[in-house]
Amino acid sequence: MKTEEVEEIIERFLPAEEGLQKTIFTAMNYSVRAGGKRLRPILVMETFRLFDGHGKAAEPFAAALEFIHTSSLIHDDLPCMDNDTLRRGKETTWHKFGEDMGVLSGDALMMYAMETAAAAFSYNANPKNVGTAMHVLARKTGIYGMIGGQTVDVEETGKALAPETLDFVYDLKTCALLEAAMMCGAILADASREDVQNVERIAKKVGMAFQIRDDILDVISTDEELGKNVHSDEKNEKTTYVTLYGLENAEKKVAELTEEAVALMHSLTGENRFLENLLVSLISRNR
Amino acid sequence: MKTEEVEEIIERFLPAEEGLQKTIFTAMNYSVRAGGKRLRPILVMETFRLFDGHGKAAEPFAAALEFIHTSSLIHDDLPCMDNDTLRRGKETTWHKFGEDMGVLSGDALMMYAMETAAAAFSYNANPKNVGTAMHVLARKTGIYGMIGGQTVDVEETGKALAPETLDFVYDLKTCALLEAAMMCGAILADASREDVQNVERIAKKVGMAFQIRDDILDVISTDEELGKNVHSDEKNEKTTYVTLYGLENAEKKVAELTEEAVALMHSLTGENRFLENLLVSLISRNR
Repeated sequence: MKTEEVEEIIERFLPAEEGLQKTIFTAMNYSVRAGGKRLRPILVMETFRLFDGHGKAAEPFAAALEFIHTSSLIHDDLPCMDNDTLRRGKETTWHKFGEDMGVLSGDALMMYAMETAAAAFSYNANPKNVGTAMHVLARKTGIYGMIGGQTVDVEETGKALAPETLDFVYDLKTCALLEAAMMCGAILADASREDVQNVERIAKKVGMAFQIRDDILDVISTDEELGKNVHSDEKNEKTTYVTLYGLENAEKKVAELTEEAVALMHSLTGENRFLENLLVSLISRNR
Repeated sequence: MKTEEVEEIIERFLPAEEGLQKTIFTAMNYSVRAGGKRLRPILVMETFRLFDGHGKAAEPFAAALEFIHTSSLIHDDLPCMDNDTLRRGKETTWHKFGEDMGVLSGDALMMYAMETAAAAFSYNANPKNVGTAMHVLARKTGIYGMIGGQTVDVEETGKALAPETLDFVYDLKTCALLEAAMMCGAILADASREDVQNVERIAKKVGMAFQIRDDILDVISTDEELGKNVHSDEKNEKTTYVTLYGLENAEKKVAELTEEAVALMHSLTGENRFLENLLVSLISRNR
């Protein structure tokens, strides 16, 4: 799926910037349009395709995943969190619209994600599948998923992490939303229970490998190659896979996870080469 | 329904305070247990009863409504919003757990509400009804409901409001979640489309009358009677129903709305005297 196709889906579900709430609509749209790889919506749509999904029910979920991701970035940037004023070369939401609107637009996008996904009930889709997908989306976003990971990450900032804690943070903060994306795609395509479980495992391995690759790139790249400041983990005395296990073992772990993810891909009922290539490219990226 | 019964339902859905995310679980539970009238969960359960609802599907929704309400209070109290350090005589969540945990526990409760409600899909309930109720809950909470009202309220603070703007803020900020509570109860009890629409109208009238009554009490009460500082609207130069239309017209409006709400109650397919008395007592309260 081309990025433009995904952009078109996301754009279609954004609120119209009119009425008395115009400021919040503008702040939401500004934040979503600030861009990114649109990885999560692509994962929804391509996993839906892998299992021969019919109809349009995956589209609101694709948009919802991007809204949730964006919402988490808005709140991460707040003064009381990372206090960032720039993201991807643009002003962060709170910096542009004020701190109160920063809090409210994150809230707004999070709930609007659920509202958008729930719209799938009025599509011609199995309501049981839509319900299961909504439950997965809420759980993987919430305290046992992304938000839970974020709270531990915030609390442990500046401390040396135990290996289990690092795994936990990576799992919840990074993997959970990737799992939600692929699982929702599979569930809405009426995939079997076993396929949905395997898709969850694949997403977890890919997310973990992605995150470890991030740790590796921070050590081996130059600023020019990576397009951002390298060696930031070392400067911040951050616990990473590399600091815990060394560079060689981290690279070995990524190779292992990649192999396992690909093997699991081949065990699925369906096949999607585009998705397989996408996942491998995420893991083996150089920036 | 007794408050204790509702407390028991809410308590049952709270997360266990264990694991690495313990801080956020503790902050969520602290905030929910800080109390209040539990009005929204009672409305869910009693409207469910009014339409002879069977099974347990209303319970997770009752808890969800209270979680959303609590989440909005946590974020309202933040330094960048109302900057409150006390609520109902207890420390506000951000003041007790830190500003970052204030943001995150509001986020957490909001998503946990949706996760809790979505659990109703695994109950023995009609998935189509659960789906419709989830959609109503998300919409009435989101940018076209409570959060939308909150953004306009924040933006217009300190300005003189036009009558339409005041109506809009009251409607979204106060009425929307009461409408969600009663509509979810009705939908989950398999009420007819017409009954659900009438229940929405009743909740809107009650919410509006409740809010206007609040404006009146601020003018006519003493501090002792109300249990909080009176005349605060005047001091803050706040636009209210009383400042716009005068005390007498405000009182007339409350009486009118009450009469209309009661008439609509009698037009419903079911009957619930407890609910009717509760709604009338909300509107005619002296504090």
